[in-house]
Parts: sequence; structure tokens; C-alpha cells
Amino acid sequence: VLWPRVLDVNDRALRHVITGLGGLAHGRPRETRFDITATSEIMAVLSLARDLPDLKRRLAAITVGRTVTGERVTAEQIGIVGALAALLRDALDPNLLQTSEHTPVLVHTGPFANISHGNGSVIADLVSLKLAPYTLTEAGFAADLGLEKLIHLKRPALGVDPAVAVLVCTVRALKYHSGMFPVAPTRALDPTLSAENLDAIRAGAVNLRKHIENIHRFGLPVVVAINQFATDTQRELQLVRELALEHGAERAEVSSSWADGSAGALDLARAVVTTAEASRGRVQPVVRADRPIEDSIRAIATQIYGAADVAFTSAAEKQLQMLHQEGLGRLPVCMSKTPLSFSDDPSAVGCPEGFTLTVKELRPYTGAGYITALCGDISTMPGLPRAAAAYNIDVDSDGCITGLV
Amino acid sequence: VLWPRVLDVNDRALRHVITGLGGLAHGRPRETRFDITATSEIMAVLSLARDLPDLKRRLAAITVGRTVTGERVTAEQIGIVGALAALLRDALDPNLLQTSEHTPVLVHTGPFANISHGNGSVIADLVSLKLAPYTLTEAGFAADLGLEKLIHLKRPALGVDPAVAVLVCTVRALKYHSGMFPVAPTRALDPTLSAENLDAIRAGAVNLRKHIENIHRFGLPVVVAINQFATDTQRELQLVRELALEHGAERAEVSSSWADGSAGALDLARAVVTTAEASRGRVQPVVRADRPIEDSIRAIATQIYGAADVAFTSAAEKQLQMLHQEGLGRLPVCMSKTPLSFSDDPSAVGCPEGFTLTVKELRPYTGAGYITALCGDISTMPGLPRAAAAYNIDVDSDGCITGLV
Amino acid sequence: VLWPRVLDVNDRALRHVITGLGGLAHGRPRETRFDITATSEIMAVLSLARDLPDLKRRLAAITVGRTVTGERVTAEQIGIVGALAALLRDALDPNLLQTSEHTPVLVHTGPFANISHGNGSVIADLVSLKLAPYTLTEAGFAADLGLEKLIHLKRPALGVDPAVAVLVCTVRALKYHSGMFPVAPTRALDPTLSAENLDAIRAGAVNLRKHIENIHRFGLPVVVAINQFATDTQRELQLVRELALEHGAERAEVSSSWADGSAGALDLARAVVTTAEASRGRVQPVVRADRPIEDSIRAIATQIYGAADVAFTSAAEKQLQMLHQEGLGRLPVCMSKTPLSFSDDPSAVGCPEGFTLTVKELRPYTGAGYITALCGDISTMPGLPRAAAAYNIDVDSDGCITGLV
Amino acid sequence: VLWPRVLDVNDRALRHVITGLGGLAHGRPRETRFDITATSEIMAVLSLARDLPDLKRRLAAITVGRTVTGERVTAEQIGIVGALAALLRDALDPNLLQTSEHTPVLVHTGPFANISHGNGSVIADLVSLKLAPYTLTEAGFAADLGLEKLIHLKRPALGVDPAVAVLVCTVRALKYHSGMFPVAPTRALDPTLSAENLDAIRAGAVNLRKHIENIHRFGLPVVVAINQFATDTQRELQLVRELALEHGAERAEVSSSWADGSAGALDLARAVVTTAEASRGRVQPVVRADRPIEDSIRAIATQIYGAADVAFTSAAEKQLQMLHQEGLGRLPVCMSKTPLSFSDDPSAVGCPEGFTLTVKELRPYTGAGYITALCGDISTMPGLPRAAAAYNIDVDSDGCITGLV
Repeated sequence: VLWPRVLDVNDRALRHVITGLGGLAHGRPRETRFDITATSEIMAVLSLARDLPDLKRRLAAITVGRTVTGERVTAEQIGIVGALAALLRDALDPNLLQTSEHTPVLVHTGPFANISHGNGSVIADLVSLKLAPYTLTEAGFAADLGLEKLIHLKRPALGVDPAVAVLVCTVRALKYHSGMFPVAPTRALDPTLSAENLDAIRAGAVNLRKHIENIHRFGLPVVVAINQFATDTQRELQLVRELALEHGAERAEVSSSWADGSAGALDLARAVVTTAEASRGRVQPVVRADRPIEDSIRAIATQIYGAADVAFTSAAEKQLQMLHQEGLGRLPVCMSKTPLSFSDDPSAVGCPEGFTLTVKELRPYTGAGYITALCGDISTMPGLPRAAAAYNIDVDSDGCITGLV
Repeated sequence: VLWPRVLDVNDRALRHVITGLGGLAHGRPRETRFDITATSEIMAVLSLARDLPDLKRRLAAITVGRTVTGERVTAEQIGIVGALAALLRDALDPNLLQTSEHTPVLVHTGPFANISHGNGSVIADLVSLKLAPYTLTEAGFAADLGLEKLIHLKRPALGVDPAVAVLVCTVRALKYHSGMFPVAPTRALDPTLSAENLDAIRAGAVNLRKHIENIHRFGLPVVVAINQFATDTQRELQLVRELALEHGAERAEVSSSWADGSAGALDLARAVVTTAEASRGRVQPVVRADRPIEDSIRAIATQIYGAADVAFTSAAEKQLQMLHQEGLGRLPVCMSKTPLSFSDDPSAVGCPEGFTLTVKELRPYTGAGYITALCGDISTMPGLPRAAAAYNIDVDSDGCITGLV
Repeated sequence: VLWPRVLDVNDRALRHVITGLGGLAHGRPRETRFDITATSEIMAVLSLARDLPDLKRRLAAITVGRTVTGERVTAEQIGIVGALAALLRDALDPNLLQTSEHTPVLVHTGPFANISHGNGSVIADLVSLKLAPYTLTEAGFAADLGLEKLIHLKRPALGVDPAVAVLVCTVRALKYHSGMFPVAPTRALDPTLSAENLDAIRAGAVNLRKHIENIHRFGLPVVVAINQFATDTQRELQLVRELALEHGAERAEVSSSWADGSAGALDLARAVVTTAEASRGRVQPVVRADRPIEDSIRAIATQIYGAADVAFTSAAEKQLQMLHQEGLGRLPVCMSKTPLSFSDDPSAVGCPEGFTLTVKELRPYTGAGYITALCGDISTMPGLPRAAAAYNIDVDSDGCITGLV
Repeated sequence: VLWPRVLDVNDRALRHVITGLGGLAHGRPRETRFDITATSEIMAVLSLARDLPDLKRRLAAITVGRTVTGERVTAEQIGIVGALAALLRDALDPNLLQTSEHTPVLVHTGPFANISHGNGSVIADLVSLKLAPYTLTEAGFAADLGLEKLIHLKRPALGVDPAVAVLVCTVRALKYHSGMFPVAPTRALDPTLSAENLDAIRAGAVNLRKHIENIHRFGLPVVVAINQFATDTQRELQLVRELALEHGAERAEVSSSWADGSAGALDLARAVVTTAEASRGRVQPVVRADRPIEDSIRAIATQIYGAADVAFTSAAEKQLQMLHQEGLGRLPVCMSKTPLSFSDDPSAVGCPEGFTLTVKELRPYTGAGYITALCGDISTMPGLPRAAAAYNIDVDSDGCITGLV
């Protein structure tokens, strides 16, 4: 059985579990894992389905395991497609929410871009494309993850090419990518990141440059959106804007919508519209369709991430051979990788080069229509940080929740 | 750590699991279990809390584990009460739903009566008592479970005594309790149960009689509600009514509300009102407060279930001693037991006598304010039946879900 | 698979293990246990076999597991009998050792009497019966275990009845059975046990009396051998001798062979010879052959141990039913029980009465030819005491081992 | 806890186990493994110790685990050195056996050369060096394993340099290394290997040449011992002899001692004596002492195995850093690798080049005095072949064991 249970909590103790203990009445002992819901293949299927029949077709194609003789078993073969579809029937309709300024927004499906394909649903985009003059869709995490998957995994299902890419950056992130600050995933940010530091921005801009280059490689114009923080100085914001343009962005604008609402994003919005109008709107994929898995991974790793080489662990090598034998060897690939670096090493900030990307596992997501490649030490079940935010949260005597920020 | 994870699915393979495998970065290996949400202590706490401060007080008192030297550790000590309360803040407000005839009903909290205290929330009852002339509250499963816990566990938190007990029975259930039909929890009902069979009803009425006696022991009048099925004959319904009155019920009426809506329950409603008006409304508990756990269990087992004796497994005996050492030895007891029999053996239908009730485990639910006693082979995580209902469910081309019945 | 691995070390962490983790190349996950070698069915088979063909026949009959549909699988069916016999070929020949006075003694096989049948090998006895005028064979632990199994399990294989039982006792053990001293299995002996205490001996003699009665029930005369310790006083030794005779022993003699060698046991030896010559040498079993398992257990528990009742746990009850269905329901029973008490509670010293013996598990030892019944909290893998003897052991600079006593 | 249990059986289901289940009385849950005795650090310590004090010193230095804060814990710290030494006191004395021609031979300790240091005990060699004119010691498996470890791991403890290396080869092995025959570790040998095939021998001789080169790199002369099989033809034997000399061996002789006893090895023995007399007896290590672990591994991998590069898995990388932090970063290295190939891939026969050796785990064997580096998919617990030899074994009616060949 390959199919894991999923839960929507961060629980590192569920990454490696044994279930079914206690005797035959309680199932059979099995080594398995819980994944976070955001990496579930069902979440991916829901995101990529164009309609109910497509949803059922994709659910039917999900690989749930292999027989003892190694043959793939699908959800259809074990007869659960109808029940799955019934549970998802209402979830397939996009959720219409409103912003704090009462403009409509569709929030629909949440596959993480580090451990899934990282894009909102195809159906929500199709609805928006019908109803609105401009459709903005989020491709999460960094562009090496979210955008790459928009192009290679979502675009074929959507059937529409984007006209422009909006690349969001912050002063703080560029400083972080300078490598001058000690930062770890589970540690609070260094307070000195808030002090003005033009040198750090200049050093960290190699990360921005690499993203701009990557987006151009896909044939898309780039608008850099500089997401302003309260601690940013004007000189810092100005420098980022200059560096963005210098490194090839078509346009770059500061957005203060966090403080000023839509008024703060007007310049940015105009830049996006202008760029979109001028765009020829033709995407150029980096990975061609119908390529062997290992070639697709190599193309993404070397051309997008900047890796020198790709290594497969012994286990991944065997999975690769099995996938080829099963006729799944030319499915597209969904990379699972830390979003903190272009490489598979979360501490390699900036624009690392010459590294080897290690693929440790290949999982067939045949319902979603791709092979998931887990790189480095990535886990599909996050853990809580050392000091969990929950410790600060309370409800006061008026029933108001405190400690959320 | 005593605290299990809960999930709201039936998954027998999660009854005995080992979590935290794979090395220190993924937690520590631990033998544990998943419970069904309906048996969660948090569900019980939510049901029994009178208001937000009471909720927080109860959450703080939850036992999450013991130190290596055996001292109890509470939710308060690990600092998660605020976060728990924040998650439950909105859940504490009762849900107002409407029936198919547009009359209001509060549906709030769902602790199963076999593996939890089996009663809707105290807050929903308090709201109803303020708003409505008559408050009907459900005490689930059979009266030996739901009603016993209403009296001993919910009544102290609610502070109000019921005036009358409505005992629901069916023709089919009485036949089942005759022992003339082979019935197993995971098997479909025998179709011959639907044929008229007055002898079986007479034989099975020992079960009804025992329930009426038990309710009288609590000092409450009994109205027997005979829930009519399409296959019941008039002679069967008439016989049940006669047997109910013969066995001591104050009143007994057939209800056809399943087919006729509120019109079908008018006779029953009038009988309930008349009985309630005449009731002195004073409950007489079977278990006195502040008794040792083992005495409370013995009182319920012998006086309500009809057991001859109570046995503790070696493990339960040790837990009992530990609870006494910790000063928890006189908390009330929440019995966990099969609802299919007065005994702990699901196949002992009718009115079994002379049996020994085996207590296999005692769990401190100090937030709920009681000790849970698991009897026989009861599990706090149900399994799916051999032929899961999911296999019949589908969504048709119009998007309608089929196969639910 | 029912068949456990065995190891000849005390290792409590191997009582409950999961093996075969890590994927198909490393076996399948299985909940299992390691037993101590002394409880191995192979040890029992080796002890009970009369010759090589009998050994092979018994090995072939060993139950190694059940199929998923519940059918028993034997060692013969999985084709390992030849290999097992090859490993045991030389082990089947008894070991001839000499005492410190250069008299010959056969030491052959070591099944513990608390968790196996507790008697030296049939072959060694047959050899001795051929070569020596008198054959002394050890039936280990207390007579309620070792002697009971000599009569019911070994005697049918041996085909010879004993003429007399030598019941070994010590001053210290009788004091211990008075209940006046706190003693726990894993704790050092109370030093006050060494002081003269005639009252304690009188109180503890109820244990001796019960053993004498039990042996008489088997139709055997009893010679009580009082094993002298350095701290025993003459008054104590004299009192034990008087009490033994008063409680019905045919003879009772002090043996100081620990200090004086064979000279110290001359009186005892003469008493044994005299009693043996006068014996009619016909044993009367307590359990008749071909009785249901539950009857055999009840007979031993009530007639030998002094229990009032026998209880089966839910798990043992199911195993009992399965054994009856398999046609194994009338095999003899090998009791597994603490040697520290007549009951299944190690702390119930003296001559406990009115207790219920709990059977927690029934294991088919079809090669040995019996069903093992595990009672109370007995484990077939001992643990080390809190202060393991290993901490005191060393090798000095001359290569001599120190710290063994 | 890093310290595994060992057993002297092949049992693949014990490679990954969880022990200590069932509650605190039965230990704590722990993920661990069983190793085969031949890879035990205690076996290595016994092999390398020069005398009892050295044995105790080495036992004391064994790493048994790390505290939760990461500090190393030794056998000395947990107080078990005396007990270990007591168990090993007699085992430290070499076993004197005789050959079928009644010549004496010391057989003492058996560490496998693929997963341990692969050489007989230092003490046995020291005894032999005192008693005999010539001491022959075995360095097991292939010379890339056994000889390399003789030079780098045993020689410093022994304090004596060898004068000559005898490289054993067979006609069949050279054919196998041609790559012309399908061979897998768990499959029976291809019968066509027995037919005369001079081409295969010529192709496979690249393996022999690489071994000769490696031995010369250590500064030792090489005598190739061609171990004759019944199926070898004279032309094949002659060809191997020619190829051995052509590839640089000082001498090469056919030995038929398998059939002819010592008479069959006379030519070989004379060649060894002659070569030894002419040897300057000075060894030149490939790895210098006191080098970082990663340098030592690289030196062996590239200079002995012929690897192009060495890769560390993510887990091994972390262990390497920890060892350096603990001051163990410059201990010698004991390579664990398949003996079927110069590389870590058992199917890469002949003389593979350009491969990357993957190090998956580093284990501190601080009692033995080295770091064990596990390469490729090597396991320290072998499994049985698909068709276990045990199925053929039996004992016949005369008590003779059959089926061993």
C-alpha cells in the first residue's frame, strides 16, 4: 500500500508510523506515514480537475498500492471512486470570498508548492477568466517552484497561457539571501535584518536575478512587486527597484497594499496591466512533454535551479526503474524541494551553483498525472517549530482570541 | 503520554499504532492509539461546560500523561489551554437547525453513549430551558448507557432534573432481543425479522421490562415510544403497547412520525406532556457521589446491568490503585460498554443475568470530571463493517449522490 | 506466525517486538516476542523425546503458525524437520558430568518449571534407570509446578512411576512464607530473615503442609529434605523437622551436604531409600487423560493450588474455542505460573485460599504434546533485576573472575 | 542507544526492529537492529586485543550510545566492562585445531571482511609467530577488503609486517568477472561456468590484474594461488597462470590441495617460501594515519577500488560532522562493502571504473578503534537465500546428517 493517510496538522511524529498492530481484528501491521493535507493527491486532483467527470476520471487513476507481485492497484480497482467523488462533489465548486474592500476573490484548493504543485484550482481560474477582465492566480512559494509547476503541470490542464509573471520580493528576503544573517527554518528571524543594509540587498539580489532569468526562460515578461514592510527605508526600496530593472525585469514597483489597501497597489497594478497588454502571451516550457522522468528532473534542476548534476539515491533509482517498467516513465514531474534555496539544501541562500540535487524518492501521483520527486531532506509532513505559536494563544474574558500575532 | 489523537473516521488500523519513528527529528517512538472524535475528552468537555470559563477550567484539568516518575501532567502544565480554548470558542455556541417542518432544534456535540457520556451539550439544554416550554434532550444508545450517564454525569453539571423519561423501542428490536434470530454487529439484519412474530416480541420484552425497571429505580416515570416501521403489523404494535404497560410503563404510544411527521407523534407528545405534568421531577441516583471507583462500577453493574459480579483485569487493577494514590479514586465513572446487551458481551441479548462484567482499563478524564471504565472488548475506535457502505455510493451525471440508503 | 525466536538471555525489551520492518526485502512487519530458551518448545521436545525417531516425530508436530484462514501450520509442512533434527542430533545425547566427589551425574536439558514442564530429559532418566540402583531426577521449582508436571506430562513419556518424592525445604523459605517479611522478586532478601524466628517458621509451615498434602494426593510418600544454611539454628532445624512430620511427611531429615558433601546427606539418603523400598510405587494423577483443557486447568487449580475458581481472559477464551475446533481441546496442559506462590499472585505467600486463577493465554505446544496455559502476569522472557549482578563482576589482573557471589 | 544486539544466524527480519513495546515494565520503545555476530564490535575487539588488559581497555572504550544532548556514552560509563571481560576471558585464548593431516592450526575469531575488519586474531598470530617458522594468516574475502584492513587496521595492533601476499583465485571466479554470465548473490551458479571458456578467463583477468596492482601498491610481492576445481581444464589453469605472471605477480602456482591434501600444495608452498625469503618485508600503507575520515575513505575508494568519486548521503554527512565534533574525526576507517565487486554495486564485475562510491552510514567502533563506513546497500545482517539450504538437510535412520552438500 502506497497511499498514506493525511491530516491538516503539523505533526512530525506522524511522519513514520506503524499502524494495524494488536492482531488481525485491528488490521495488519504496516509501515506508513501521514502527510499534510496540502500534499495530498486528492487535493492535487481537485485542483487540476476541469469538471466532475474529469474529477472522477482522475480519482479512478490514483495509485493506491501494488500487489505482492508488484502490479499497480488503482482507486478504481478497489471500488472507492464513487464514494470519493461524493465526498468531493461540493468541494469542487470554488469558494467566493471578499477582500476587506469588498472585492470578490476565489479561494479554492491549497496544494503547497514545495510538496505539491502549488497552484490554485483550474476551475477557479476558468470561472475568473469568464467573469473578470484580468485573472490573477497565485503560484505559491518561490518562482522556481510555483511558477515552474504552473507552466509544466497546471497549464496543460488549464489550456491558457499567462501573459505576465508578477515576482513578489521583499527587502528582508533579499537581505536574507545575502548570506550575511544566520537564519534557520525553525528559528526566529534575526532582528538586525530590520536595520538598513544596502550591501546585504546588493549581495542578496543574485537570488532575484536568477528568478528573473528563469521567468524569461519561460518566455514571460516580469513585473517585480516589492512588498513593502514598515521597517524598510526609502533607500532600500529604491535600491531593490533599481536592481530589479538592472537584472532585466520589465517593470518594478513598490506595493504598500499591506498598509494602504488597494490604493497602495495602484502603481503595481498599472505596471502589470501595461506589461500584460504588451505581452505576446506564449509560454516556452523548459521540459518538453513525454520525456523520461530522469530527463525532466535534470532539465528543471540544471536550467531552473542551477544545479550541476542530479543524483538518485539507491531507493529512488529502483523506483525509477519500476516506473519505467510500468509505462509511467514519461509522466511529467512534480518536484518536492525546500523553498528556502534554489538547491535542496535549505541553508544555501542566494544563487548557489555547482551543487548536486539528490532525488531520494519518486511517488506515482497517477490521478494528478505526474510523478512526485522528493529532493534533499524534504518531508511531506511538516513539524511544529521549537516554540509553537500555540503557547501564545488564549481567549480573554470577552471571548476574544489573543496572541495570534 | 496518555493523550491519544482523534479522527472522525472509522479506522480499525489506527487502534494500535507506533508513532514518532525514524529518529529524533521525527519525535520519539511511542505506542499509542487514535480514538474516534465522539469519544474524545474534548468533546465531553465541550458537552459538559456551562460557559467559557468552565470550558477553560475543564480543559486545564485534562490529564495528558504522566512523568517517568508517575506524576500526572495536565493540559495546563504544558501550556496549551489558551490555544485549545481559542479553537473551541465558536464551537461552544450551540447550532440551531430546523426540522423538515421548520421547527427549531439545537444539535450540539456528539459524544457516543457507549464510549463517552452520550448526551447533548449542557449549554444547548440551558438555552432550550430558557426559550421553550418543554425541553427534550437525547440520551443516546440504550437507557442503561445514555440515561444512566444523564443522571450521574450530566445532571450535576446541568443542575436540572428531568421530569419524565421517553423510552424508545421498536418491534424489530424486541424480536432481536428474543434471541431467536442470529444477529452480529457487522452482519446485515436477518430478513425474517420483518415477518409478524408475536412470540419473539413476548420473549424479547424482557429487555424492555429491565429498562422500565431501571428508569423507575432512578425515580422517573416512563413513557414508551414505539417507533413504527413499515413492516410492523397492527397486532405487533398493539402487543408491544400492552407489554410495555404490563411491565410498568406509565404510558405507551405508537409514533409514526417517520412517515407522518409531527402529526404521527401527537399521541406520544400528549402522553409525554401529561406524564411530565404529573411527575414530581426528583431523580434518585443509583451511585452516590464521592464513592470509590470500584463501588460506583459495582453499583451500576449490579443494579442497572444485572451483573452478578465485576472483575478487573490485572492491568485495570493496577490503574485503580494508581488512581486512588493520585486522589482520583472517588471521581464518578463513565462506563464504556457495548450497547447491544446489558452485559459486556454483545451477543447476550434479552435480559442476561448472573454474568461477570470485566473492566479492562480505567482512563482518567479529569477535564470531563470522571474516570472512563472500558468493559469487555469495547474499543474507542470503531472499524468499518466487512462490506463498507462506501462501495455503494456514487455521484451520477447530474451531480446527485446515489447509494446512501 | 505463532513461533517466537528464543535467546538465552534475560532481556525484557524483547518481550514485545516488531520485526521485519524496512520494506519487503527485509521481511514483513510482524508483532512477535523473544522467549528465553528454557521455555522453548524445542527444549521441551528434546526433554520428552525417547529417541531420534520420537524427536523427529515431535519436531514435525510443532505448530509454527496459522494460515490467514486459520488453519494450523506445522514444522513438517514448512519442511524444516530434517534441519532441526540435524542441529539437535548431538544434543539428544545426555551430558555426563561429575560431582566434586567424582560421582557421575547426568545433566540434560533445562526447561524451567514455571514456564515449561520443568523436568530433566526422559533419555537421561532412562539411561540412569539402566545403570544405577536408584535414580534421582529433579522436578524443578516448587512441587506444585515441577512435580505436578512430572506426573502429568513427563510420566506418560517416561513410562515409569516414581517411588518417593523428596520435598526440599529451607528454614528461610518457611519464614518467608509466614508473610512477616517484605519480599519482592527483584529485591535483595531481608537480612532479618537470618535471625532465629520460630514463630515465623510455624506460620510459614502452612506452605509445607500444602505441598505434603499435594504429594500424598498423587499417591506418593514424602521425605522432607531440610537444606541447612549456615545461619539456621538447631532449634529452627528441629522445629521444621517436627512440623514436617506433624503435617504428614513420612520422614524428614536435615541435609548439610552444602557444607559437608555426601557425608552431610547420609541420613537423608537412608530415609529416601527406606521410604522408597516401602513404597507401592503407583501414582494417582489428579488430571485424568483426555479431558477438556478447561477441566484440566480447573482440576490443577482447585486440587493442587487451592484456587476457588478459574477465569479466562477474553483472549484466552477465544483461543480455547479455537483449540477445541482444531481437535486440540483435550491435550494435557502445561501450567505457566509464578513459583513464588500457590496462586498466580507472586505476593500471596503461605497457603492462599479462595483466589481466582486467571488464564491469560493458551499456546499450542503440539510437538511437546500439550497446551501451555499462561496464568496471571507470567512472562516467558524474564527481565534483569534493578541492580543487575553484572555490575559486580570483573576479571582481576591474574585473570580470575570476581564478584560472582 | 547505538549498540545493537547480535545473533549468529542469518535473519533478514531482524535488520529493522522495534523493541521494548508493551509498556514501561518491558523497556522503552526503540528502533534498532540485530547484527550478525561476525560484524559485532566485540568480535573485532577480541580479534585486535593483544592481551587481557588491552581487551578491557578496548571494551571500556566501546560507544554504546549518546545522551539526549548528544554526548557519547561508553561501556565503561555504564559499568559493564568487568562483566564483558569475564564472559570473554576464555574466548581470548586461541583455539588449537588440527587439519585432516594432523598439522596444527589456530582458528580464532571470525570477523567478516565485508562488514568488519576480516582478519583472524592478533593473539593467534603472535602465538604462531613464536612457535612456527612461517605464519600464514587469513585476510578474508577479496584483497580489496581483507588485505586492505590487514594493512590499515590489524597491522598497527600486531606490530609485524607481512613478507608476502598469497592471492587466491579460481578459474570459475575469473570467468564470473568477465561479465559473460548472469550471476546474482541469491541465485545458483550458472552451470555453463563449468565449461572450458578461455575467452571468459582472459576478459575476467582484469579483476586479477587490479588485485595484483593493489597489493604491489602496499609494497608486497604477490604469489597467486590458483585453487583448482574438478571441472577446470589444464588449458584453463595454464592460462590463468600465464595471465597472473603477465599482470605482474611474482609467482603463480596451481594448488590441488582440495583433492590431494598437502601434497597438492607443495609447489605453491615452495613459491611462497621463496618469495617471502626475497621480500624486504616493508609495507607501504595507502592511507596515512591521523587523516580525516573522509580523506581515508577517498584514498581507499580511489586508490584501491578504482572509484572516481565518493558521495555521502545526507545522513552520513551529519554523522561525519558529529564525529569530527566529538574528536573522532581522524580515526582509521573500516569499509563495509559488497565483496562481489570493487565498487559498491554487487553486479559490477571485472574492474569497474569511473563509479561513485556512496557512503550511507558511519558507525563509531571506538573499542575496535575505527569508524565503520557502510557503502552502497550493504547490510550488517545477512538474509537467507530464496531456497535455504536447510530444506535439504536431514538425519537418516543411522543418525547421519545428510544434505550438507
